[in-house]
Amino acid sequence: MLEDKTPQRTQLSQLGEFGLIDHLTKNFDVKNASTLKSIGDDAAVLDFGTKKAVVSTDLLIEGVHFDLAYMPLRHLGYKAVVVNLSDICAMNAKPTQITVSVAVSNRFPLEALEELFDGITLAAKVYNIDVIGGDTTSSQKGLIISITAIGEANEDEIVYRNGAKEGDLLIVTGDLGSAYMGLQVLEREKQVFQVNPNNQPDLDAYTYLIERQLKPEARTDIRELLEQLNVKPTSMIDVSDGLSSEILHICKQSKVGCNLYEEKIPVDPQFINVCEEFNIDSTTIAINGGEDYELLFTIALDDFDKIKANPNFTVVGHIVKEEESSHLITRANTKIPLKARGWNALEE
Amino acid sequence: MLEDKTPQRTQLSQLGEFGLIDHLTKNFDVKNASTLKSIGDDAAVLDFGTKKAVVSTDLLIEGVHFDLAYMPLRHLGYKAVVVNLSDICAMNAKPTQITVSVAVSNRFPLEALEELFDGITLAAKVYNIDVIGGDTTSSQKGLIISITAIGEANEDEIVYRNGAKEGDLLIVTGDLGSAYMGLQVLEREKQVFQVNPNNQPDLDAYTYLIERQLKPEARTDIRELLEQLNVKPTSMIDVSDGLSSEILHICKQSKVGCNLYEEKIPVDPQFINVCEEFNIDSTTIAINGGEDYELLFTIALDDFDKIKANPNFTVVGHIVKEEESSHLITRANTKIPLKARGWNALEE
Repeated sequence: MLEDKTPQRTQLSQLGEFGLIDHLTKNFDVKNASTLKSIGDDAAVLDFGTKKAVVSTDLLIEGVHFDLAYMPLRHLGYKAVVVNLSDICAMNAKPTQITVSVAVSNRFPLEALEELFDGITLAAKVYNIDVIGGDTTSSQKGLIISITAIGEANEDEIVYRNGAKEGDLLIVTGDLGSAYMGLQVLEREKQVFQVNPNNQPDLDAYTYLIERQLKPEARTDIRELLEQLNVKPTSMIDVSDGLSSEILHICKQSKVGCNLYEEKIPVDPQFINVCEEFNIDSTTIAINGGEDYELLFTIALDDFDKIKANPNFTVVGHIVKEEESSHLITRANTKIPLKARGWNALEE
Repeated sequence: MLEDKTPQRTQLSQLGEFGLIDHLTKNFDVKNASTLKSIGDDAAVLDFGTKKAVVSTDLLIEGVHFDLAYMPLRHLGYKAVVVNLSDICAMNAKPTQITVSVAVSNRFPLEALEELFDGITLAAKVYNIDVIGGDTTSSQKGLIISITAIGEANEDEIVYRNGAKEGDLLIVTGDLGSAYMGLQVLEREKQVFQVNPNNQPDLDAYTYLIERQLKPEARTDIRELLEQLNVKPTSMIDVSDGLSSEILHICKQSKVGCNLYEEKIPVDPQFINVCEEFNIDSTTIAINGGEDYELLFTIALDDFDKIKANPNFTVVGHIVKEEESSHLITRANTKIPLKARGWNALEE
């Protein structure tokens, strides 16, 4: 019998981003005492003494993660920092430092890089963090940004993804879906512009959505707020890939299920209007649209009184046993299995 | 009078890599008490308690930093880690963790990424470091690797670039130039292969050079060795861009000059042979060729007796007053100003 000698080739898209990471990192075991938490959360946790260091990193590629047609470089620089700080916030840590590496093709003049760094500098100022290093090099195509963020926290303050317990409340900060609809508005304007470059867009009805897309903020305020309220979440994650995807991360790592209530999901009125204009189901977007950079966390039921009056927090569901799995409870009171349809960079 | 409204466009190559970094980072001031040392050395130094954390990051781009035509993915993964660990060694710190972000275009199957991660995993094992996080995404073109390395050290152990003093000895580990000549051999073989793909290269005469290029090692042993010898360098850097470039970094930051002796520069016999074969001046390559990942450091003259018998170290020169500037003293005893002709990613 003849052997098939064709080397096996597996398409990356078959695995998906999370599957790929799991697959490639399964051989990494922890060897150093200073590594308290390795791969598998929003950030790693390192022990160098009294305070713990929290480390997270992100790679942003032009044409995959951003489109310079409608993303001004200054905003891009700001957002690239915010995205990483958000991961540090998701550990209930305080962001303190970042490294920034940038690769650009020859088509970028210095002035373009200056704009990018203006945005990075502004974010460093606003969030009181230090840019401690990086690398600048050339790329064969487009702009590539790699940022690593470092934060600090006392060991007992750090919140992981794996601590949610049956009966805990599921809470989200701010509102959801607006960043995704902001992107839809910008994509539409780009197409209009390509047809008629003289067309002056009137974006007044979309300012909030566009700002959520182009200039998101990291919820560094939540750590302080929770401390004041004397609440420590049992688990936490940031909403970068979409609410359903993030809920499922918490449930998987905490070995629990959850009920998410459609009617509770916080959205902005402008978001609802634009969903109607685009004829898109707003709940689908609020659940699956990414890039909001809000925080999703669980708290013990006993802590409900401490947070219930606070406008920053919305209770959107509760944790159930693992066997009960994770569901969306619709306004019509039907129970739909929750699926991760979050943004997947490898499906592009 | 008419104003020139053309926006100013400055070519990045006008500034060079170091000029660009200086220019873009001049606005970054340090705000956090935990930032002991920010931009400007091989790595940043952070204070989270008893031990200090040392952080360095690198971005590697296909077609700029490596060529997959002769760089096997396994070796690339290994080298990408080593390059970063070398920066940590250059701070006299112990590498402990890395984050790894990878972006790939669709042409890469999973098996290719597995090979890359095999090399990363091997390096993590050899150097006893933890891979604590990262990011996997798609690129528009080619393979992009971003690695951040973290190390630890007691504050009094850390060696910066700025401590060299007049009269100090300039010392280099291992030998220099071989990695660069290994690259020349591989480039030549690639061209031969393109003309005649059936040609089987005989690379026996070049094994050391090729290994220096494809599988460099980080000098994690030097920290221990210096500790045993009870020598603390006054300044240190790793030789990634070429000896002359690194010497000038130390001199600039230490506000000193130096005399480098041509006859003292350590090179391998294979390197000399291949320079003759290629009809290239070996000193030019030993001084300007990059990617050796050896360590360059200065010690007080009083410490000379402690290191003089050690085969790992070669005294190549000494530090002089800043006004005397930096020179190469040739075998013919002529004094030539030392210039940084190191590898510049932005000139490609």
